[in-house]
Amino acid sequence: MKLKVYADRMSQPVRAVIIFCKVNCINYEEVRLDIAKRQHLTPKYAEINPMKQLPAIVDGRFKLFESHAILIYLACSFPGVADHWYPVDVFKRSKIHSVLDWHHSNLHPGPVTIVRNTVLAPALGRPFNPEAAAEGEKILSASLAKIETVWLKDNGRFLLGGNQPSIADLSLVCDIMQLELLDESDRDRLLGPYKKVQQWIENTRNATNPHFDEVHKILMKAKEKRQNQRLKGENHGGGGSDMKKPLVSRI
Amino acid sequence: MKLKVYADRMSQPVRAVIIFCKVNCINYEEVRLDIAKRQHLTPKYAEINPMKQLPAIVDGRFKLFESHAILIYLACSFPGVADHWYPVDVFKRSKIHSVLDWHHSNLHPGPVTIVRNTVLAPALGRPFNPEAAAEGEKILSASLAKIETVWLKDNGRFLLGGNQPSIADLSLVCDIMQLELLDESDRDRLLGPYKKVQQWIENTRNATNPHFDEVHKILMKAKEKRQNQRLKGENHGGGGSDMKKPLVSRI
Repeated sequence: MKLKVYADRMSQPVRAVIIFCKVNCINYEEVRLDIAKRQHLTPKYAEINPMKQLPAIVDGRFKLFESHAILIYLACSFPGVADHWYPVDVFKRSKIHSVLDWHHSNLHPGPVTIVRNTVLAPALGRPFNPEAAAEGEKILSASLAKIETVWLKDNGRFLLGGNQPSIADLSLVCDIMQLELLDESDRDRLLGPYKKVQQWIENTRNATNPHFDEVHKILMKAKEKRQNQRLKGENHGGGGSDMKKPLVSRI
Repeated sequence: MKLKVYADRMSQPVRAVIIFCKVNCINYEEVRLDIAKRQHLTPKYAEINPMKQLPAIVDGRFKLFESHAILIYLACSFPGVADHWYPVDVFKRSKIHSVLDWHHSNLHPGPVTIVRNTVLAPALGRPFNPEAAAEGEKILSASLAKIETVWLKDNGRFLLGGNQPSIADLSLVCDIMQLELLDESDRDRLLGPYKKVQQWIENTRNATNPHFDEVHKILMKAKEKRQNQRLKGENHGGGGSDMKKPLVSRI
């Protein structure tokens, strides 16, 4: 029975898992659930993942949730996954665990908080919350500074310093990619000070393309749709939407 | 060269690492830093852990931070650690990763937020913040309910259902133990509805004693000190301290 990946590509950890499967030629079936339509909250999906979050996988009789755990499981269970993704060497592997653990409580809440409280708020049925978004900016900046000065300090192409990405690069970069939903000027303002981070995002993208771009298409489409809505609003004399204001003015 | 563990036992992930070392007869040196005295924020410690958090380890030339990554490293690198702590079996191991990942963004912020914003606030130089503590209570209750109904639903002694604890049991239970700092009535109110969780805490304690109790002594002493200060305040006609009010009234 084929591996099933329960997914909404609008979710950044979902994208990391999907890209990993594609890059490593893992044969899988993508079971699409729409978070905006609350399809991850049904009792049927709770049988797959009782935490009602995406992604989750089913491999035969084995069910698993949490994207880092899934990435490690896939790296260990499917033949042909190159060692650099999750090295057998205990020291390298431990560094990956350290980055992934740090990510949970540091980088991850940054982009999530910004995007949820600004551009994604209407789709999620939430109010715009500039204070929460500002808090998200602080978390993001502090975390990007740490990535730049700790893991990328030796000018390595990837977080562990090697020439090939690990699951940690993929997970963290997919999170930062969520900022694509913002206006270009806001994204540039947030990422601008971190040149090494920008290069590392590009390195991870190049190392996983064409899959990286294909899986992120949904973000680009959402961004385009939003921009069109804004232009339409402006052409109709303002439209009165928060969407037309740049993020910086809403925070 | 002996393994060094940089530690303040007031920190719950530190306690998990220390208990793990003791239970598994890992020969280590405990390098004590006092968080209340900001000793984890010095440039000297930043050379060990640039994130300036505890715990961290140094094993020969290898440095590592993040407690889950440390527990996994120790389980894989030191001879004599029983398999149940971090099983070789990929399915069991993946479930441990899943619990540990879930813990970061779900259970962990609960006790931390409650305790930091109430009883530990003065020692940390922070104001009491009843709103933040109330938010922490919500997070804690939601997470305990999930532990009770997902991982403990089959009445197993431990989270993975076996008869021996894993690193996930140790990590999560040490976090919940932080609630010992609260008044007995507040702790009972918060844990009271979760009978299976209470039994699981006791199972983890029994499986790791006498080390569990020894490493948690610091919490019990801090609790006793706080109670004595309160009594002293009451004997002097009130004392005017927030300490005398039960947590429930401060939230």
